[in-house]
Amino acid sequence: MKKILLIGAGKSTSSLMAYLKDKAPVEDLQVTIVDKDLSLAQKIVANDPHFTLKTLNIFDDVIRGELVKNTDLVISMLPARFHLQVALDAVKYGKHMVTASYISDELKALNEQVVAKNLVFMNEIGLDPGIDHMSAMRIIDQIKHTGGEMILFESFTGGLVAPESDDNLWHYKFTWNPRNVVVAGQGGVAKFLHAGKYKYIPYQKLFRRTEFLDIDGYGRFEAYPNRDSLKYQSVYDLNHVNTLYRGTIRRVGFARAWNIFVQLGMTDDSYVIDDSEHMTKRDFVNAFLPFSPSDSVELKLRQYMKIDQDDELWLKLEELDLFDDQTKIGLKNATPAQMLQKILEDKWTLKPEDKDMIVMYHKFGYKTGNEFKQIDSQLVVKGTDQTYTAMAKTVGLPVGIAALKILNGTIKTPGIQLPINKEIYDPILKELEQYDIIFKDKEVPFECYNPNKVTG
Amino acid sequence: MKKILLIGAGKSTSSLMAYLKDKAPVEDLQVTIVDKDLSLAQKIVANDPHFTLKTLNIFDDVIRGELVKNTDLVISMLPARFHLQVALDAVKYGKHMVTASYISDELKALNEQVVAKNLVFMNEIGLDPGIDHMSAMRIIDQIKHTGGEMILFESFTGGLVAPESDDNLWHYKFTWNPRNVVVAGQGGVAKFLHAGKYKYIPYQKLFRRTEFLDIDGYGRFEAYPNRDSLKYQSVYDLNHVNTLYRGTIRRVGFARAWNIFVQLGMTDDSYVIDDSEHMTKRDFVNAFLPFSPSDSVELKLRQYMKIDQDDELWLKLEELDLFDDQTKIGLKNATPAQMLQKILEDKWTLKPEDKDMIVMYHKFGYKTGNEFKQIDSQLVVKGTDQTYTAMAKTVGLPVGIAALKILNGTIKTPGIQLPINKEIYDPILKELEQYDIIFKDKEVPFECYNPNKVTG
Repeated sequence: MKKILLIGAGKSTSSLMAYLKDKAPVEDLQVTIVDKDLSLAQKIVANDPHFTLKTLNIFDDVIRGELVKNTDLVISMLPARFHLQVALDAVKYGKHMVTASYISDELKALNEQVVAKNLVFMNEIGLDPGIDHMSAMRIIDQIKHTGGEMILFESFTGGLVAPESDDNLWHYKFTWNPRNVVVAGQGGVAKFLHAGKYKYIPYQKLFRRTEFLDIDGYGRFEAYPNRDSLKYQSVYDLNHVNTLYRGTIRRVGFARAWNIFVQLGMTDDSYVIDDSEHMTKRDFVNAFLPFSPSDSVELKLRQYMKIDQDDELWLKLEELDLFDDQTKIGLKNATPAQMLQKILEDKWTLKPEDKDMIVMYHKFGYKTGNEFKQIDSQLVVKGTDQTYTAMAKTVGLPVGIAALKILNGTIKTPGIQLPINKEIYDPILKELEQYDIIFKDKEVPFECYNPNKVTG
Repeated sequence: MKKILLIGAGKSTSSLMAYLKDKAPVEDLQVTIVDKDLSLAQKIVANDPHFTLKTLNIFDDVIRGELVKNTDLVISMLPARFHLQVALDAVKYGKHMVTASYISDELKALNEQVVAKNLVFMNEIGLDPGIDHMSAMRIIDQIKHTGGEMILFESFTGGLVAPESDDNLWHYKFTWNPRNVVVAGQGGVAKFLHAGKYKYIPYQKLFRRTEFLDIDGYGRFEAYPNRDSLKYQSVYDLNHVNTLYRGTIRRVGFARAWNIFVQLGMTDDSYVIDDSEHMTKRDFVNAFLPFSPSDSVELKLRQYMKIDQDDELWLKLEELDLFDDQTKIGLKNATPAQMLQKILEDKWTLKPEDKDMIVMYHKFGYKTGNEFKQIDSQLVVKGTDQTYTAMAKTVGLPVGIAALKILNGTIKTPGIQLPINKEIYDPILKELEQYDIIFKDKEVPFECYNPNKVTG
């Protein structure tokens, strides 16, 4: 019998729990699920003899320690800041651990102890980070294995709404933490490498530096650069590429309209708006516009942002009832970002029957002999319903698969790690295909950045 | 005999030293000037029997304490962060003190002791802060005294180049700390009050929200909002005004061109540019532009910033040799702001014969009976030469005048204070007029913001 302790049973763990339920009889699993709120777990694994559900205060060291002590492997699906405490228990009692979060410096510091105890601590094995690492390394290793020399790597991910549920002009709904969407891109310059030169984009230009992406069967998308394009350069061993770029995918037109909010100052989370409680949406917009004794908020906004009268962008703003002077936003002591989030949540929340969609797109440029070649690799995953969302599938399934493969010894190299080695990504990607998480690769002409004669 | 200790003898103290030298025989002054670098002091007061010059390490508590102990009044012209140490000495030995800097919270905390010892600690008595306080309060008090009710207060200041020395397209040269000019407006939203509503301008729009100002005999200027427009609302007792705005004055066209730097990201001081040491100006510009295998940096910039081919703004950029691909900027591990500063310093440094110019403009709107009225008050001060700059005059003279008036008992209310009371500003403004620091007031039609029916 293999024992798993799953700490955290929130929205993103539905597919993980269903996966474990499905595998429990064959793999002889005994799974303990703990959280403050167990309603989702009850819905999915209720009365299954392989599962025990417990309400846990994760700050109770004694109970948490006892649970970790009595398992073989811990999966922590808590918010990232809580992993360390669980990891310390896992080291203490000599248990494997899996998380879908970034490796923190504090966690990294445990590596020596983890290796000494021959434990596997697998991290960054959700969607992004997770599937992005595995799918990228699969092709990078393949290119290198056949003698190719990597020149370009671009990688894009987006959490979107599925086409059949796409019924607003922004072609966007919140499928994950709305706050992260509102403050996206803040806190530092976006830096990337393009044809051998570092490029820097400040926040105020981020949403005007999109590029288009076509995804087979799904049409055209756009992407804006992430702040951390260079983060995995050494991890992926891409120190000699001359183009390295990571971006976030939206439907075409999103970024250009979002830029209006950025320019107005509505995404600022650093100060509180006076009297926010009594402001209507129109008052909120007007707080960022010059005063006029007579002109309308609409005209002032058009003039200030140079929006043509027949620009479809305007319809996007109207769709959010941005000029409504009746209803109060109703947030006390709120920052602009919090008020904008509230306005958007009223419009961009998934309806019960809505499906979400995950899109991922990698471009691999390489040189083989004297030839420049490129492989594009695309993934589209749709949610089944509001429980088994594309987000829950793509985050939870790799976590579950990794956990079982650690328990059955397929993944055995010890240490604090992320899934960039063939030993790990090959079996996991293969099993993910059974769940329709399938990358489509194709050779395309190399996106000529004039690699031999760079002038720009 | 009255003894003055002047700590700090930098560029901004020339007029102060000259003033004290002029007054020394009549007022029976004995002045001790201390600084690391005494070259300016030597030039101005050399061999004057009323002056003693000493090289001082201001961190040497014993020597500094001894000097403070043996004076009647201390003037600290050090950078603001060093005032507290001097103030503690002054309290300890029971001496008056004068600074041209903002009152810090730490300084404010000494008030009880200062009052108990019957000492005057006069602060914010330079130009801005200083002359701005005094000249504003003079009219505000006058309006209130005649039964008027303040409705609007706008105040603008600029350190510029005098018209006769104005020989570049930006109509600007550095007359003060260049770094402050490059990072101006960063670090928080600009908030002000306009016709009863709070307005918020983010950094990315700051330089597009200028307004024009006409100054008699000097033509048209523009002003962009400061971050701290509401800072003096309670200090000036303007809690019931519905418009309160403070701004920085430039020549028309400056802000629109400066906005190009802001949008590109060149004013960012938060990160270091890779390989900055080897970059030409052209490389620097290109780091903020999209890659192209063939298009020129010039064309990319025009397209990115939507600059028309015949826009005079372009000439401003060219004037800075921004597209020069030969000369390296030559700064190692530099931030964008540091690199931009270097580029600008090559062009905007005052020549030996250049004169600077200080411009200040207040608008006072008020209601008297049923009438709306407005007084505009304007000040222009030109430098005499590179020693006696307008900046040195307007900062140093009020400091010197205040110091003597404290010593002779004209200013006697004890405490940590700024010059907002008639007892203080009246005699100081009167004496400043002898040095051609003269405000010109005029009644103008009230700038109608439709005060009874605000719709915007």
